[in-house]
Amino acid sequence: MTAIRAAVSADIRRTEVREFASPAIPADGGLLRVELCGVCGSDWPYYLKYPKSKGPLILGHETVGTVAQLGSVAAQRFGVKEGDRVALEEYLPCGHCAYCRGGDFRLCDETDTLNRLGTVRYGSTPVGHSPSLWGGYSQYQYLHPNSVFHRVPDNLSAELATLALPLGNGVEWAYLQGKVGVGECIVIQGPGQQGLACVVAAKEAGANPIIVSGLGTPTDQRRLALAKRLGAHHTINVEQQDLLDTVSTITGGAMADVVIDCASGGPWTVVSAIQLARKGGRILIGGRKGAPVPQFDVDVLFTRFLSVKGMRGHSYQAVELGLQILASRKYPLEDMCTHTFDLEAVDEALRTVGGEGKPDAIHCSVNPWR
Amino acid sequence: MTAIRAAVSADIRRTEVREFASPAIPADGGLLRVELCGVCGSDWPYYLKYPKSKGPLILGHETVGTVAQLGSVAAQRFGVKEGDRVALEEYLPCGHCAYCRGGDFRLCDETDTLNRLGTVRYGSTPVGHSPSLWGGYSQYQYLHPNSVFHRVPDNLSAELATLALPLGNGVEWAYLQGKVGVGECIVIQGPGQQGLACVVAAKEAGANPIIVSGLGTPTDQRRLALAKRLGAHHTINVEQQDLLDTVSTITGGAMADVVIDCASGGPWTVVSAIQLARKGGRILIGGRKGAPVPQFDVDVLFTRFLSVKGMRGHSYQAVELGLQILASRKYPLEDMCTHTFDLEAVDEALRTVGGEGKPDAIHCSVNPWR
Amino acid sequence: MTAIRAAVSADIRRTEVREFASPAIPADGGLLRVELCGVCGSDWPYYLKYPKSKGPLILGHETVGTVAQLGSVAAQRFGVKEGDRVALEEYLPCGHCAYCRGGDFRLCDETDTLNRLGTVRYGSTPVGHSPSLWGGYSQYQYLHPNSVFHRVPDNLSAELATLALPLGNGVEWAYLQGKVGVGECIVIQGPGQQGLACVVAAKEAGANPIIVSGLGTPTDQRRLALAKRLGAHHTINVEQQDLLDTVSTITGGAMADVVIDCASGGPWTVVSAIQLARKGGRILIGGRKGAPVPQFDVDVLFTRFLSVKGMRGHSYQAVELGLQILASRKYPLEDMCTHTFDLEAVDEALRTVGGEGKPDAIHCSVNPWR
Amino acid sequence: MTAIRAAVSADIRRTEVREFASPAIPADGGLLRVELCGVCGSDWPYYLKYPKSKGPLILGHETVGTVAQLGSVAAQRFGVKEGDRVALEEYLPCGHCAYCRGGDFRLCDETDTLNRLGTVRYGSTPVGHSPSLWGGYSQYQYLHPNSVFHRVPDNLSAELATLALPLGNGVEWAYLQGKVGVGECIVIQGPGQQGLACVVAAKEAGANPIIVSGLGTPTDQRRLALAKRLGAHHTINVEQQDLLDTVSTITGGAMADVVIDCASGGPWTVVSAIQLARKGGRILIGGRKGAPVPQFDVDVLFTRFLSVKGMRGHSYQAVELGLQILASRKYPLEDMCTHTFDLEAVDEALRTVGGEGKPDAIHCSVNPWR
Repeated sequence: MTAIRAAVSADIRRTEVREFASPAIPADGGLLRVELCGVCGSDWPYYLKYPKSKGPLILGHETVGTVAQLGSVAAQRFGVKEGDRVALEEYLPCGHCAYCRGGDFRLCDETDTLNRLGTVRYGSTPVGHSPSLWGGYSQYQYLHPNSVFHRVPDNLSAELATLALPLGNGVEWAYLQGKVGVGECIVIQGPGQQGLACVVAAKEAGANPIIVSGLGTPTDQRRLALAKRLGAHHTINVEQQDLLDTVSTITGGAMADVVIDCASGGPWTVVSAIQLARKGGRILIGGRKGAPVPQFDVDVLFTRFLSVKGMRGHSYQAVELGLQILASRKYPLEDMCTHTFDLEAVDEALRTVGGEGKPDAIHCSVNPWR
Repeated sequence: MTAIRAAVSADIRRTEVREFASPAIPADGGLLRVELCGVCGSDWPYYLKYPKSKGPLILGHETVGTVAQLGSVAAQRFGVKEGDRVALEEYLPCGHCAYCRGGDFRLCDETDTLNRLGTVRYGSTPVGHSPSLWGGYSQYQYLHPNSVFHRVPDNLSAELATLALPLGNGVEWAYLQGKVGVGECIVIQGPGQQGLACVVAAKEAGANPIIVSGLGTPTDQRRLALAKRLGAHHTINVEQQDLLDTVSTITGGAMADVVIDCASGGPWTVVSAIQLARKGGRILIGGRKGAPVPQFDVDVLFTRFLSVKGMRGHSYQAVELGLQILASRKYPLEDMCTHTFDLEAVDEALRTVGGEGKPDAIHCSVNPWR
Repeated sequence: MTAIRAAVSADIRRTEVREFASPAIPADGGLLRVELCGVCGSDWPYYLKYPKSKGPLILGHETVGTVAQLGSVAAQRFGVKEGDRVALEEYLPCGHCAYCRGGDFRLCDETDTLNRLGTVRYGSTPVGHSPSLWGGYSQYQYLHPNSVFHRVPDNLSAELATLALPLGNGVEWAYLQGKVGVGECIVIQGPGQQGLACVVAAKEAGANPIIVSGLGTPTDQRRLALAKRLGAHHTINVEQQDLLDTVSTITGGAMADVVIDCASGGPWTVVSAIQLARKGGRILIGGRKGAPVPQFDVDVLFTRFLSVKGMRGHSYQAVELGLQILASRKYPLEDMCTHTFDLEAVDEALRTVGGEGKPDAIHCSVNPWR
Repeated sequence: MTAIRAAVSADIRRTEVREFASPAIPADGGLLRVELCGVCGSDWPYYLKYPKSKGPLILGHETVGTVAQLGSVAAQRFGVKEGDRVALEEYLPCGHCAYCRGGDFRLCDETDTLNRLGTVRYGSTPVGHSPSLWGGYSQYQYLHPNSVFHRVPDNLSAELATLALPLGNGVEWAYLQGKVGVGECIVIQGPGQQGLACVVAAKEAGANPIIVSGLGTPTDQRRLALAKRLGAHHTINVEQQDLLDTVSTITGGAMADVVIDCASGGPWTVVSAIQLARKGGRILIGGRKGAPVPQFDVDVLFTRFLSVKGMRGHSYQAVELGLQILASRKYPLEDMCTHTFDLEAVDEALRTVGGEGKPDAIHCSVNPWR
């Protein structure tokens, strides 16, 4: 094999393509030939922080590729063989703790970058950690012994396959955790890739009505239009319509059984999420808000019997269901796949996901071979 | 029947015994001869607010008594007959809405005093609302057509039977909602009657360890000692021990699967409740805090995959289980029944529950016949 | 009001139209003007048995109509008013037992005709029981104090509205009890009205694939074709294709997550239902088989970790969801409504549902005014 | 290391102690020094069948021991280190299939001896399969890469620790699958080691009453007495008392919420298990019956809304809870540990578990060093 080209985030907001020698593969490891790697919303805060706090690293953890090489032990254990086309999860769970044995491996301490420093996970581990190739913005990615694989059908395009993880999040949040069900009203705040994935999951689960709210910006308006094509019954431009009044009108005053806050503009959407829920409703917080909620009215949880739950990633089942939905071709999910970038353009890809690049982007990918 | 004597909260902090004529009982109603009525923690805010906002009223909604009279329709519908000994719930649910038909009648809008003005419920309806006898601090209580009854065994003392509702809350919060299970660690903040009821419910459900925290006051110290007799494995005086450190030590760093905040000293215990939970843990807020949480760190719900749920009252099953536990005599629950007051002493009873009266009180009752 | 005309099953297989005087309505009762009443599959065994074992009776318990009269107490309690259009459930639950209070009122002993003689229920109570009008094949039906109502939108045809209960069964069995979910494989044996209702419920819940099996008769072939129009992915003619092999082929050997046996031809479909389930799968038995399973292999429940559950009727939520699905117009459910009969033709209607009448029938109704 | 002594079931009902050389340990494997190995009820059918159908093998899969040696990869992956004291599960799950990733690894096809020939599992794999040491009736046991470990506290005796798996079964069946809860009535048929384990699990979960039935034999009478010491409220000698009548009397006619059939005398206890359940109850079948149920009345599942579920083994959580219960010393579980046999006496140990040996046995173990 010739040198492996990878996009290394050398410093904050500065990525450069470097070449790596093909690593020695241990008996229990392997190597993946990356076909395409999606850009996750979490890549943006990583991009702004990790090159300094962790050291230079190859970002990217929505990888689709082909198993290129397996050590002798890995060939027995991985359940995949050379030549298989797979999607990887970002987690590298230990496999033997109570979380792993109980089906909640995404909570495994070994791969928990949020609560522990120095843990190893795809797309957020520095190149200084051998064998360097931990990220998907690269021609090849190292297959750690604890890799979690999903088979990708041959007839699914790489662009669609990179949606396995975001769609897995939607399935996990709206369906497996939010337990949205037949005939229930769900409100999804924020029409980004996570919000749109929640629309699809809610649609699959029979939710009705599905309501999505967004801003009046051209970007959000395009995304809200896509939300409708994906199955949302109503969309709300919160700059033109009162969010609570509109949901009240749509539901005849009943409000929402489930609210998912996928917005990224700070803590205030948490407050409206709680206000949107019916008595006994469930509120799910999808991701980091970056700031505390000032004067949080905890008593409303009591007076209206509400639950608020923080969402975090996806289970194995959620990603399998995401791939099954993608393979079903029931939804125009290709409309989410708006841009593919070269390795040399990873900075642009990341800025785009961070809202500083192409305004019409929804889900972006990096193709390391183009 | 001669005149009925009842304690009317005529104004804020001022109760007077009045006499009422025996009311005309409609075909679908009835009359209960009150044996004893417990004093709930919520009576205290009612006492400070309702005589002004709603008008004079008879407080008390943990009533145990004997069915004295039934209208012809009620005799068919109530499932009880004259002479039966019963405990009443405070709710008067409509019986036909989706909440009622689905087993969640405590959320029925018809009896939801928290979210709707003017709804009817035992112990919080003014005497101006015919036929006046809506509260348990009275010799007789009107049996509304929507009354919810529980049979009380003859060999259960009235004092113990008045614990049916508080114990029902403990069963609902710790077990049915919190789903605390075998071998799980539960931390209960606040050793008042609700906290102690949660100890019993958690013990029944096999929780281990059960940890209860309280203040260094003589009152709380007495209550923490009772918590131990009821089955708590550890108690923590938060004025002498660091709460988080101590729970961490007890659990070997694992922290709590379930945390129930039954403390009444403002919103800060919500913050510690969240800190006490393990990754993936469940936090239950038992009752009103009276003030917002300043600078609420919502991101910790995401980074540690936590849920926060507001607790509200009890289901039918919870109260039945509470009575079953009381009848089993497995726990020294008579130690919770510290004081019984006459009708003339209802003011003192209420001040005691509000923390202004007898310092050694836990659960108090009013006996209208003494 | 002039005399009320009703179809009385005077003897087995012999129905005659009789006239009844308008009954005196008690304070807690009412009267429904029947618009249309569906014919349930269970009417057939009732028709063959009850006129002898219980005495003459008015069959019919899928009633849609308008509230014509309410007693003073009923007007307070029923949650409906005169003129409201409603669908009734067949159950007359007591309202105060643990089943009723917990949301499982269909199990209430008071209305349990299967386990107790002499209980009262719509469509299976003799005319000798005052006030006689217990069935839907009548111009008016008595509203018992324990009636369970569902509001019917004005723009929903009466034919569709009579599907509220069969569709409620489908929702209860496939979704609420069977818990079929997104991406799960369900096999439904028997394409009768219950099987077809299960198809719709499974489709709403995101099941994929949905497989329906039936016989090679013209009747079943028509029904299987409708199953496809309602959303089934595959149908199997068990007289031409091996059921197990075909399901194995469709699922790539994985077999079914959920199997519902809605077939009516005796106990053998129970055996195939068990064979169709994957390891860890769930088998639901929809209704009576009429004969024991000879040589039942209980060990397969152990070796393949299976559960078998008998299904019985519908919850309140299930019927509400059924009506919501009907109102959504997402499915060609009007194709299920094949025949409407006059009161004079109730014998033919019942024979049709029993398989002795019109071969192209699926769901039939009786219109007492035509 | 000198030769390893192990009890090889060379033929049906004939075991001989053989010596094995210490095997070469691959990078991803290891070696366990067996401290003690429990005798499972399933060893008896294995003993009567596997030496012929699979070839000679070392039985025993309730192993407690110390990690003696680890390959370099295993040292990274196993989560245990040399010198650690552990209990092993019998399963060797693949780790990457949907069952394994979802927390149900006991259903993994790779280790499913019930549904697939030739799978590998501790205690049921022939010595012809390298490296031979697959069973616990041996001084050393091979640690396969897919081994499932549980840490055993130092202060827990080996005898008690061998109960980890049987107690795990009790926790799985009664609590995690049967979902027996606070105040629920459970009937356990058969007071063998599984039935007794279910008593302990039900006690932990707050079940009340717990009723255990058995025969009038001295063996069962001794076991029923132990059931009472472990927390059962009632025991029934079915040869002297009518089982159904007695349960009806105890429960005031309500019958059982949960019934677990742990009896081993053929299929008839399945029939009584179903009869013992209340309307809406859950029946769990613990293990193989060996013969079909003649004339199985499937309609009773419908008329009384029952579920029947086959039980199979334990989850990781169940075994962890079993060990936690053992460590708590709350129950006289040492009374279950009746006999310890030498390697030379493995035939006697197995005959004892099969009912042909010591009549006072409950749980037996083999000590390979004595």
